[in-house]
Amino acid sequence: MARIVYVNGRYLPYAEAGVHVEDRGFQFADSVYEVCEVKGGALIDVTRHLARLARSLEELRIERPMADPALRHVLSEVVRRNRIRDGLVYLQVTRGRAPRDFVFPGPDTEPTLVVVARSIDPAKIAAKARHGIAVKSVPDNRWGRCDLKTVMLLPAALAKENARAAGAQEAWFVDEKGFVTEGASSNAWIVRSDGFVLTRPLDARILGGVTRSTLLDLIKQLGVPVEQRAFTIADAWAAKEAFVTSASATVMPVTVVDDRRIADGRPGTLTVRLREKFHSMAEKLPT
Amino acid sequence: MARIVYVNGRYLPYAEAGVHVEDRGFQFADSVYEVCEVKGGALIDVTRHLARLARSLEELRIERPMADPALRHVLSEVVRRNRIRDGLVYLQVTRGRAPRDFVFPGPDTEPTLVVVARSIDPAKIAAKARHGIAVKSVPDNRWGRCDLKTVMLLPAALAKENARAAGAQEAWFVDEKGFVTEGASSNAWIVRSDGFVLTRPLDARILGGVTRSTLLDLIKQLGVPVEQRAFTIADAWAAKEAFVTSASATVMPVTVVDDRRIADGRPGTLTVRLREKFHSMAEKLPT
Repeated sequence: MARIVYVNGRYLPYAEAGVHVEDRGFQFADSVYEVCEVKGGALIDVTRHLARLARSLEELRIERPMADPALRHVLSEVVRRNRIRDGLVYLQVTRGRAPRDFVFPGPDTEPTLVVVARSIDPAKIAAKARHGIAVKSVPDNRWGRCDLKTVMLLPAALAKENARAAGAQEAWFVDEKGFVTEGASSNAWIVRSDGFVLTRPLDARILGGVTRSTLLDLIKQLGVPVEQRAFTIADAWAAKEAFVTSASATVMPVTVVDDRRIADGRPGTLTVRLREKFHSMAEKLPT
Repeated sequence: MARIVYVNGRYLPYAEAGVHVEDRGFQFADSVYEVCEVKGGALIDVTRHLARLARSLEELRIERPMADPALRHVLSEVVRRNRIRDGLVYLQVTRGRAPRDFVFPGPDTEPTLVVVARSIDPAKIAAKARHGIAVKSVPDNRWGRCDLKTVMLLPAALAKENARAAGAQEAWFVDEKGFVTEGASSNAWIVRSDGFVLTRPLDARILGGVTRSTLLDLIKQLGVPVEQRAFTIADAWAAKEAFVTSASATVMPVTVVDDRRIADGRPGTLTVRLREKFHSMAEKLPT
């Protein structure tokens, strides 16, 4: 349970942590976010998360609420004040509060910054990883700038809820040509029968995952063949292994896609190896 | 200036009107809204607004915060407490507050309801209508369910800001085939050279505007020929008249599209007539 939440310069008790009803994050989804893993009290890959945040803000012309060192300090402080050893720290920046109007508010409008941290039981995620998860595919009906980490997340929430109702734990969006774009809150990967690891190349349809980029570094270091190439659901069914990556679950085996098992229906050997080695490659910043 | 805001059962001073940082409207754009015109102290077309709200909520499986008579009462109360004679009342419903998770929260989660009202100077809108507005077109990159009035509005905000920067007052989204879908916060219409009024038929790409539907009733009553058919920017350039409809501006003449004048660059005769007669057709509920 989160106890202390940072909101615009103040550390508030969870119950009192609010934003104004005319915050543009609330009225226009005019807002971006990051989710950073906390492991053993350290922030994982925070440099890459903040670099991505800076890009999202710049593309949307939202002012940076503070410089990176100050932001790192706030993240650390929220993690410390909530005594998180293993969990997630969530950061959201909006264009700020202004009387409702589609056009941007004046330059004196200050961005809103919210930071929430929460513990996660690593044993629970480990248990999930031992079984692997089921994925359900859904047509990708999201907007055209999924490369920006915005809160335009309603279709992702709907997709994940529908996946849950169908007994799956993640949804994979599929584009008009039948190619998987990404998961509702993860990047999608397969290991082809020839041993090549495949994940979709970056474009405006998918988010450049931080875990994705660190994992690509690890895969290259290990000398495993990899190609950034889109794949279909049929490709996934024919694959040796499948998995998803996200800050909250790092490398999570996928064992079922649309009710069909991948290979023998157990987490793949390479997937398990990548999961085990992931944190050896990731940046760890003590809090 | 709004002074009193309704939030979940309480009438709060504007400065204190907040929602929780883990409201799903803030974190996931998991929220819908309505904007209703207030004219001479009466709510305009509130029955149609509440019917559309009910549809948005049902499609997204968000619980209704209260029955329509109670909701009408809250709208009236907010209008009265802010002493609005002419203006807008804005209503937003979210799936509620819950620890951040893409899947829907449990059934005990109560939806969030926010109502804000604000005065608008009718003389300002009238002056704008005498000149007509300029429109700038932009590729439609929104998500696949624009028939639902959700707060997935970042692309609309970006489009309208870009229009503003280009000296225009509204943006028209254009689909992959070159047809106008709708405005960033309005429906788009033209009057063809043969006298037919054209507006795009309803589908998942556009919102079924309340003002649009009341205006269609009026047009039929007047015996003016009308067709629900998509048109292109070139069709608009060749048209006799063009206009947009929205609750905030009712019928607003469009005199320039992408820097080219429509006809002689002045508000069209039929457009002005429809604007003048609009409120004779609309429902008026005293507050």
